Amino acid sequence: MKQIILRAHPQGRPRADDFAVEEVPTPVPGPGEILVRTLWLSLDPLIRFALDETVLTGAARVALGEPVYGGTVSRVVESHHADYAVGDLVEVRSGWREYAVVDPAQQRMGFRRIDPAAFASPNAPLSAALGIIGMPGQTAHSAVEIGRVAAGETVVISAAAGAVGTIAGQIAKMRGARVVGIAGGPAKCRAVEAIGYDACVDYKAPDFEAQLAAAVPDKVDVYIDNVGGDVTMKVLPHLKMKARMPVVGFISYYGDGMEAPGPDRMPGFLRFVMSRSLEVRGFAGQMTGGQKALDDLAQWVADGKIRSIETVVDGLDNAGTAFADKFGRNDQIGKLVVRVGKE
Amino acid sequence: MKQIILRAHPQGRPRADDFAVEEVPTPVPGPGEILVRTLWLSLDPLIRFALDETVLTGAARVALGEPVYGGTVSRVVESHHADYAVGDLVEVRSGWREYAVVDPAQQRMGFRRIDPAAFASPNAPLSAALGIIGMPGQTAHSAVEIGRVAAGETVVISAAAGAVGTIAGQIAKMRGARVVGIAGGPAKCRAVEAIGYDACVDYKAPDFEAQLAAAVPDKVDVYIDNVGGDVTMKVLPHLKMKARMPVVGFISYYGDGMEAPGPDRMPGFLRFVMSRSLEVRGFAGQMTGGQKALDDLAQWVADGKIRSIETVVDGLDNAGTAFADKFGRNDQIGKLVVRVGKE
Repeated sequence: MKQIILRAHPQGRPRADDFAVEEVPTPVPGPGEILVRTLWLSLDPLIRFALDETVLTGAARVALGEPVYGGTVSRVVESHHADYAVGDLVEVRSGWREYAVVDPAQQRMGFRRIDPAAFASPNAPLSAALGIIGMPGQTAHSAVEIGRVAAGETVVISAAAGAVGTIAGQIAKMRGARVVGIAGGPAKCRAVEAIGYDACVDYKAPDFEAQLAAAVPDKVDVYIDNVGGDVTMKVLPHLKMKARMPVVGFISYYGDGMEAPGPDRMPGFLRFVMSRSLEVRGFAGQMTGGQKALDDLAQWVADGKIRSIETVVDGLDNAGTAFADKFGRNDQIGKLVVRVGKE
Repeated sequence: MKQIILRAHPQGRPRADDFAVEEVPTPVPGPGEILVRTLWLSLDPLIRFALDETVLTGAARVALGEPVYGGTVSRVVESHHADYAVGDLVEVRSGWREYAVVDPAQQRMGFRRIDPAAFASPNAPLSAALGIIGMPGQTAHSAVEIGRVAAGETVVISAAAGAVGTIAGQIAKMRGARVVGIAGGPAKCRAVEAIGYDACVDYKAPDFEAQLAAAVPDKVDVYIDNVGGDVTMKVLPHLKMKARMPVVGFISYYGDGMEAPGPDRMPGFLRFVMSRSLEVRGFAGQMTGGQKALDDLAQWVADGKIRSIETVVDGLDNAGTAFADKFGRNDQIGKLVVRVGKE
């Protein structure tokens, strides 16, 4: 079988040649274990954290020569566990490879049996288990919930064209908010508007700040942040007193460790936190939303109230390039998934 | 009368010679106005913001040659307003001067009539209207409230020897928490422990990180932050999942504008906000706590449950030096007030 290993720890932005494809024997499951075949692989920007030579305590870590870490939708092809039958579908963090041996007793976060009923609707591709009916969906659901988005409010969402952004914007619209996205480049902004955002502002445009000001004439009640850095600093002056700011991610800094090259933006950030009485909330999306969020999302997708938006890359061989593109060209819209094997 | 004007916009830390004493005619109140005599002047580190050449929209601003901005306890000595009689006490942001004309109709934030009954107890000096029974007290009260400090929890408070820190620690103790302070130098740490903190860690000590780790073996539920910067970055790894972090201030950055010299600490900060599901809350203390907080504080002080801790500087002439010391030598304990005139 094929797998993709980490060849070099990325320095800053990941590059395609930080990864290498290799052929290895298909592993053999032991007692209590199952063998799964990868159907879909999730390319989550958070994987970036696991690729550094030194990783913060508690985070996953990929050593050189090891298969890259990542969530998949996989099918059981051999089972030595009473609860799993051949043909069953699971979500499992089995990594960038075609087959994996999994011990269900050892699995914790990110492992679940997939209920085919949630994907019975023609609106719900199985890959959405890694997207809108999966972790990014739960995260978006939680962000809107933690931000207490209410009808008539103005919500700004950064990385609006990303996996979480495309979903959070749709849920905020369902709640009756005015939703303004921030994305990079005119093509992504048009895509964001096509999803249903009321407006989208291009952070790469020379007049970004003026565009942003024009898009939020009534100021901002909730800022769902996926990026951090310069974009966030430019949003802060538009936040209302007591605005809520769920922190989903900070992709602009994912190439950095604890510190990035200066200047230090903390003074400005804390100044706004204090003077605007902001509520900044981090959250582990998957844990916060839980099954309730997944059920909501599956129902909304089946009813056509929200749509699965994804960019599909064909073939495991292309995973490294697609992942590197996320931090470089970054022209993907919605959840980025790799079709590893036929369903 | 004497007043102290801003002679130069401070570059970074304020210096005593950024200020100058001058003699000017005592002003004369017009119709509807009152003349007040300053008894006590508050030296609040937040004044630093008003001294820059360019000040963020919405903040107070002191122009060169103007008297420095600041809160006072003052006595009415001449009145052309039906609601104010000679002898009445007010808290008013009348600045660094011996007398001021005040139009009560034009006053908003920071103006109130002082109820002498709240200061009848021998435990409650009138200067405490600028401290524990005033804005810093309300701020500390709000910080503990917003942090939802509960019995048995571990609370860490930075700038524990400061105006807010000395009060917040006492209120957190009243709630049954284990309270750990952070302060600069052994003398301040001993003072913090004498106030009732369970422990105090000296951030200037070479083994600060080891001391801090030893002081919070059960990790931290609430971090009440007054400083920002390096100290805060070193506290973050000790916070529990879902810890609360009320942001009272960030004095380590008050010499900076929106940005400080690098490295940029935002990546590390956001990493902890996200991975630990932190709740970071700014708040305008005075507005949050309100009269309820003042009533609580006055009662607790009268009952001897909490104590007014202040450093008194004698004479308006010394205000500039004392204010500069706050950002330099910084050996003052508790609320820093200047005795401008006899009560």
